[in-house]
Amino acid sequence: MPGARASSVTDQPAIVLVRPQLGENIGKAARAMLNFGLTEMRLVSPRDGWPNPAAGPAASGADIVLQQARVFDSVTDAVADCAHVYATTVRKRGVTKPVVTPEEGARSIHADTGRSAILFGPERSGLETEDVAVARAIVTVPINPDFGSLNLAQAVILVAYEWSKHVALAQPPETDLPPPAPQGELDGMIDQLDTMLDAAGFFFPPDKAPTTKRTLRTLLTKPGWSSQEVRTMRGVLSALANPRQRN
Amino acid sequence: MPGARASSVTDQPAIVLVRPQLGENIGKAARAMLNFGLTEMRLVSPRDGWPNPAAGPAASGADIVLQQARVFDSVTDAVADCAHVYATTVRKRGVTKPVVTPEEGARSIHADTGRSAILFGPERSGLETEDVAVARAIVTVPINPDFGSLNLAQAVILVAYEWSKHVALAQPPETDLPPPAPQGELDGMIDQLDTMLDAAGFFFPPDKAPTTKRTLRTLLTKPGWSSQEVRTMRGVLSALANPRQRN
Repeated sequence: MPGARASSVTDQPAIVLVRPQLGENIGKAARAMLNFGLTEMRLVSPRDGWPNPAAGPAASGADIVLQQARVFDSVTDAVADCAHVYATTVRKRGVTKPVVTPEEGARSIHADTGRSAILFGPERSGLETEDVAVARAIVTVPINPDFGSLNLAQAVILVAYEWSKHVALAQPPETDLPPPAPQGELDGMIDQLDTMLDAAGFFFPPDKAPTTKRTLRTLLTKPGWSSQEVRTMRGVLSALANPRQRN
Repeated sequence: MPGARASSVTDQPAIVLVRPQLGENIGKAARAMLNFGLTEMRLVSPRDGWPNPAAGPAASGADIVLQQARVFDSVTDAVADCAHVYATTVRKRGVTKPVVTPEEGARSIHADTGRSAILFGPERSGLETEDVAVARAIVTVPINPDFGSLNLAQAVILVAYEWSKHVALAQPPETDLPPPAPQGELDGMIDQLDTMLDAAGFFFPPDKAPTTKRTLRTLLTKPGWSSQEVRTMRGVLSALANPRQRN
């Protein structure tokens, strides 16, 4: 039942930051994750240790992700319980693994049974070849070939965003859009306008009147105005027909 | 020749930052854009003026976007040449416009003829109601209902990312229906009506005038009238304002 599944922790991929350098970026990654319902962060040998005081402020309230983050000494330890490991990289030559987009990766993660993990490399250098070797597939964001400059949190947010599309939280946004008014109400408005335009000498020459009226009808049918909007327009027309005394 | 179409500037949506506060965030937005091939940035009344020395370093090399950025005094000026205006907002109740996801919005932008613009509000407060009134539709990123904390550059990158997915696939646009008139033409019509209604005493009491004007703008933005249709409506208004002598 895709699209209606609640996200438990075991459904969601672990986000594994491999040798992250700045605490600030760990915080930003946590914020990016929680925006899209991901809560499980794993840290492999964070350069400045853990916890890192710079992470909290950058997380903008996503403290729960940081508090629950677990630290590991190696990538293999970090993903030991995961059946599906993805490595995010920029496009590389000589890759001997399947390369998927974030969209395709998200689809696989939802379709597969067993836990998934997604590896993200250090800010400057990205994942090393031996980190990538642990993964079953590579996730690469298709990017402007002339300007690829995704930072860590941006890579995380795009992956988390694609993942979230398949879970219940990603509801189509609510729209309070009222339905179009019944045709009779629309006709009433059009009649009112026709009468006013007739009085104003708009339908001239008379033999062109039917075409002009049809044009107006087409134009006023196009919006799909609601009953309330039709009433507003009738108020507008009445005001123009009968200006009120001011002062 | 799908898959091989280069993205010219007129194909891509203009990214309109409305009253952005920090130069750093303008730079980050530029970086986010260029990652996905968007180059046209427009700035409406940036708080600290323009150019802003904090923007360049944050753009991480996306200088071309900043150099070409154009500054406007108002949202309506910024989108005067655009036929399709989208406003990005968090989920809101009482919205009387269509609400689409970034994915759906991107699909529309590629399908529609005529230029598109996407409005992004100031960092703290987001777009004001009158900014949203200019738009034909609202773009909302479906987000964790318990933790929605997207910053400006993140909102931009998600929208740009979705747009970029269709670049390689973009089909030649359909041309049976004339595109909606540029926003400037629509504004001219709305101004004409406002003036007439003002003279007719429609905007009473005066303190309700802004709300009433916004309602009218929303209602008249909804149809997506073509240039020809806008001209017809202006003819209608002129006829009502200046009835011709009959016989």
